[in-house]
Amino acid sequence: MTTVNDRSTVPGSQDTPGDADSQEPNAPLTDEEVFGAHEGGKLSIAPTAPLTSPRDLSIAYTPGVADVSRAISGDETLAARYTWTRQLVAVVSDGTAVLGLGDIGPRASLPVMEGKSALFKTFAGLDSIPLVFDTTDVDEIVESLVRMRPSFGAVNLEDVAAPRCFDLERRLIEALDCPVMHDDQHGTAVVTLAALRNACRVVGRELSSLRVVISGAGAAGVACAEILEAAGIGEVIVADSRGVIHAGRDNLTPIKAELAERTNPRGVTGGIAEALQGADALIGVSAGQIPEELIESMADDAIVFALSNPDPEIHPAVAARHASVVATGRSDFPNQINNVLAFPGIFKGALEAGSRMISDRMKVAAAEAIAEVAADELAAEYIVPSPLDPRVAPEVTAAVAKAARQDGVATA
Amino acid sequence: MTTVNDRSTVPGSQDTPGDADSQEPNAPLTDEEVFGAHEGGKLSIAPTAPLTSPRDLSIAYTPGVADVSRAISGDETLAARYTWTRQLVAVVSDGTAVLGLGDIGPRASLPVMEGKSALFKTFAGLDSIPLVFDTTDVDEIVESLVRMRPSFGAVNLEDVAAPRCFDLERRLIEALDCPVMHDDQHGTAVVTLAALRNACRVVGRELSSLRVVISGAGAAGVACAEILEAAGIGEVIVADSRGVIHAGRDNLTPIKAELAERTNPRGVTGGIAEALQGADALIGVSAGQIPEELIESMADDAIVFALSNPDPEIHPAVAARHASVVATGRSDFPNQINNVLAFPGIFKGALEAGSRMISDRMKVAAAEAIAEVAADELAAEYIVPSPLDPRVAPEVTAAVAKAARQDGVATA
Repeated sequence: MTTVNDRSTVPGSQDTPGDADSQEPNAPLTDEEVFGAHEGGKLSIAPTAPLTSPRDLSIAYTPGVADVSRAISGDETLAARYTWTRQLVAVVSDGTAVLGLGDIGPRASLPVMEGKSALFKTFAGLDSIPLVFDTTDVDEIVESLVRMRPSFGAVNLEDVAAPRCFDLERRLIEALDCPVMHDDQHGTAVVTLAALRNACRVVGRELSSLRVVISGAGAAGVACAEILEAAGIGEVIVADSRGVIHAGRDNLTPIKAELAERTNPRGVTGGIAEALQGADALIGVSAGQIPEELIESMADDAIVFALSNPDPEIHPAVAARHASVVATGRSDFPNQINNVLAFPGIFKGALEAGSRMISDRMKVAAAEAIAEVAADELAAEYIVPSPLDPRVAPEVTAAVAKAARQDGVATA
Repeated sequence: MTTVNDRSTVPGSQDTPGDADSQEPNAPLTDEEVFGAHEGGKLSIAPTAPLTSPRDLSIAYTPGVADVSRAISGDETLAARYTWTRQLVAVVSDGTAVLGLGDIGPRASLPVMEGKSALFKTFAGLDSIPLVFDTTDVDEIVESLVRMRPSFGAVNLEDVAAPRCFDLERRLIEALDCPVMHDDQHGTAVVTLAALRNACRVVGRELSSLRVVISGAGAAGVACAEILEAAGIGEVIVADSRGVIHAGRDNLTPIKAELAERTNPRGVTGGIAEALQGADALIGVSAGQIPEELIESMADDAIVFALSNPDPEIHPAVAARHASVVATGRSDFPNQINNVLAFPGIFKGALEAGSRMISDRMKVAAAEAIAEVAADELAAEYIVPSPLDPRVAPEVTAAVAKAARQDGVATA
């Protein structure tokens, strides 16, 4: 794998707000370029060894293959050794929450899933296959994947709308004896925790004393609340479009009722303004906008992650007037919170350890590994490594595999 | 693709009966060699373009990919153009009839499915993914594939036991608007028809006057009967382990009752001996043995295809005492009837034509294309091309695509 570190290309564009079509540091992407690169799709299968002679055929197919099949039929655990499933991730979607495009359906989601598979290979050497479902019925998706369980080694859920994504992930984790992770939840949460850890270092704070407000209670918001709790954060308050989530609020969904129990220990009520008053950190994972004066109302040395894409909750240059550390989800500003820092290594580590699941400890370990890669050169504009930094995936892999073994969920 | 023609290595071994472990012309395969080649599986996914720069990422993933997803969401037919599904075959099995090993389950079938995918790529440049099912319930397999329909462009059914394979294939053809083919049925049938056509040329006969006996009424036997009928064969009689299939026989399965109606016009009864008396051709697709005297009872210039693997119904050297043309399924005798001559080009042609199905005409066209490749050098010991002959797949592809257009099932 050849990769380059793109840090040098990022900072210059910070003062130039871009739209979705001009996020590239150099020239805007053209339709020709984008559609040309997608012609025929972005993935290709190849045999690991060429089949050019009768002997090659006899080894890879009949009669040789029969010996391997017979061996697996005698001991099914050998399938992990003699098939590609041990390093194969099924990238599963129903196309209901694709990027910022929403419910565009399984066919339209495919280019994203192919891109995801390309990233798995590029960053972690993992094989993966997009499996998109023309149903949004959780039972149907779960039972189909259970039936095909021998075909893959792990499941990366992708772009499934909340709140169904919570149920689907939970059901799959229960039904499958392999790693399952909804990346829009936990990939985002892991990188956010990594960034928050390093932001704390920059401003000289401890996670354990931090008051954090999460704006957005969708897939990413809920998972951020969970991982921050697992990492021992001081206080978390979550706000959705109806305001702060607290135990006294009416008509909470089951997921939000659970959030209300586990977060907001001071019982703050009201809206995002009340939540942000004096808060140390804001994690924006909604599509909403947050006015400058609310950022101004935060504590000194505030940390602002405006992760909404393509339009951050507040422009980073504006946020920087009142915050000491600012991050976004975009590649044309410093501190890009990008899932690609997390998911390749998380799945690779889980598969290498033969883990039956992806535990909280494994996620926190991934965040710590990501944070450590950037630790040596830490600065307000460098709290996470570049998405192309080749050191990240191996470090995350090792940390996750180790955590799996510590958690007792590893089998290898 | 580099290929070699293995014809030169075959003839010398004709008089040396081999077992399953010594089918290679040179040295026997060793366990080390076979298992070593299967370590980690035989397939790998790769991005079609490298992701090494921020710009590469922006094109293949966000933000660029959003434009492609948006375009497909506006016109779903664009998925065929901008995803890999147009050239993607799902290789589907439940592991119930794997090679000669029988019902060894989905996990143990995986090396065979991976081998199949490797052959698809090697011979036709098609991508494919093994999807193995941990259920033998036809409804469950069909509904799962229907739900995942947007994920692939065609379905190659493989190693599903008869008679369930007939029902499963029929149900999938009805439920999916894409090419579906059970290769153990139709791949075998297509190559058999190709071989029979050229064998007729060798002995100066016409297909339309030929009396053919098929020994075996499993997946391959039933499909051979169908394609011979579609190709206008003179007469077909099918025999199973209980004897000749005729309309007066008791307890026929639905499939065999249908065979009884469509074959055996003279109403022959009795066993394989009665069927072979004076017959012009024998197609052996059972696991049974056929004694020499029955071959002797066939017509002059008899044609004998003893396709059972690894043990042909009669040793080809013995058959050759009484038959003018002899073929087997094995690579160490002349005239190997090998599905790999058919399925790569059949699926490639069907996909290239955007065909909704694989029709009888397309199968017969594939057989004719295979036969034509060998036509120039026709001889009793060369009625089909070598499985590695690089001319075959392109010829089959073109013939199948043309037939799809003639049949009105093509969309491209």
